[in-house]
Amino acid sequence: MSDHDSIAALTERIRGFNAERQWAQFHDPKNLVMALASEVGELTALLRWVRGEESDEAVRGEMRDRIEAEVGDVGILLLALGDRAGIDVGQAIRKKLLSNEARYPVDRAADRSERPSG
Amino acid sequence: MSDHDSIAALTERIRGFNAERQWAQFHDPKNLVMALASEVGELTALLRWVRGEESDEAVRGEMRDRIEAEVGDVGILLLALGDRAGIDVGQAIRKKLLSNEARYPVDRAADRSERPSG
Amino acid sequence: MSDHDSIAALTERIRGFNAERQWAQFHDPKNLVMALASEVGELTALLRWVRGEESDEAVRGEMRDRIEAEVGDVGILLLALGDRAGIDVGQAIRKKLLSNEARYPVDRAADRSERPSG
Amino acid sequence: MSDHDSIAALTERIRGFNAERQWAQFHDPKNLVMALASEVGELTALLRWVRGEESDEAVRGEMRDRIEAEVGDVGILLLALGDRAGIDVGQAIRKKLLSNEARYPVDRAADRSERPSG
Repeated sequence: MSDHDSIAALTERIRGFNAERQWAQFHDPKNLVMALASEVGELTALLRWVRGEESDEAVRGEMRDRIEAEVGDVGILLLALGDRAGIDVGQAIRKKLLSNEARYPVDRAADRSERPSG
Repeated sequence: MSDHDSIAALTERIRGFNAERQWAQFHDPKNLVMALASEVGELTALLRWVRGEESDEAVRGEMRDRIEAEVGDVGILLLALGDRAGIDVGQAIRKKLLSNEARYPVDRAADRSERPSG
Repeated sequence: MSDHDSIAALTERIRGFNAERQWAQFHDPKNLVMALASEVGELTALLRWVRGEESDEAVRGEMRDRIEAEVGDVGILLLALGDRAGIDVGQAIRKKLLSNEARYPVDRAADRSERPSG
Repeated sequence: MSDHDSIAALTERIRGFNAERQWAQFHDPKNLVMALASEVGELTALLRWVRGEESDEAVRGEMRDRIEAEVGDVGILLLALGDRAGIDVGQAIRKKLLSNEARYPVDRAADRSERPSG
């Protein structure tokens, strides 16, 4: 857990990468959301035929590198979107955790096979 | 940029949140990928009718809170997936940036309206 | 199996529905693809926590109406996209089946738990 | 507009294709929804960097064959899902159009740049 692991530091690297390539012109929020969706689609493709109970083994075994590469892509696009939209992704996560705590109180949500969706 | 902004610290909070609710049983990698895809679907829904050139203003204006909430959801699920799969999301991002540097060299990728997809 | 079940007849109804509302202005192919992705995201949300081996029962039982409604949404957007893009969806399906026959020959693809992805 | 264009006839061909390959074992509703999502992800990938106002030209020009192939994939998976789930896709579309008519009355929905989402 060090500085180079911070959302801010990672975001800065991604910003530099895109700036060097003058990609800001393609990276409006709408396009970034589509790019994010297409990368998540690739992650979905990897696991579509894998049984849920075998998916732990799959992602730690033969699929590890491909999963890691797609997780990297999704992370890059999420941070790029936050950066472009003026949203601090770390803060967005902390805020959402707080609101989820109110929404799914431990005594009601715990161990429920059918937790509230949404 | 401080410790509480690190991927590791955020991941730990998410792990605690899920552990309290005994959700590990639902959170195999396959299910987490589906949950991630459905949250990205909500982000996509927000911007589907917004014109690209108006999307910067939209996400910083009237849509700000909804976009931030969905970005939070996507971030939570991405870190939960990394945690479950034994993948360090920060490292996955850094590795992918390195491979993208080789794949999209600045002198070839810069300012191209049609950059290689994929 | 009658005329009102044809792709052409359904597409005509969808075209009329959208024309009455003057929605062509919002329905460029990019936006329609995003709308399609967001509807598929809702379908994904419904099944994310359901175990694969329980998903047949779920979609025929308690979830039936919601699944049918989302399938309807996805179908509407797919036909609207085909219509806008000048693509006959029925023909696109038939062409893809033909190319899949060459790609997944019965003697090699049959009963394989790991069929070629993509 | 003939029989071979009907949803029922197309579904029958898809069912036969999958039966020959003994793929029913992989095609539970959960997996089919993931496969559908991953194919829509490929469609999204094609259009992510294309400007909305240029997307009509793109899908009728250089991208035509790729768009048609992805539309075919999405259609195949949607009909396979309907077949597996006992849902008549044509009827699901007609039912949804009827409910949309009530939800978006012409006098209120017409020509609105911000139509109700969802």
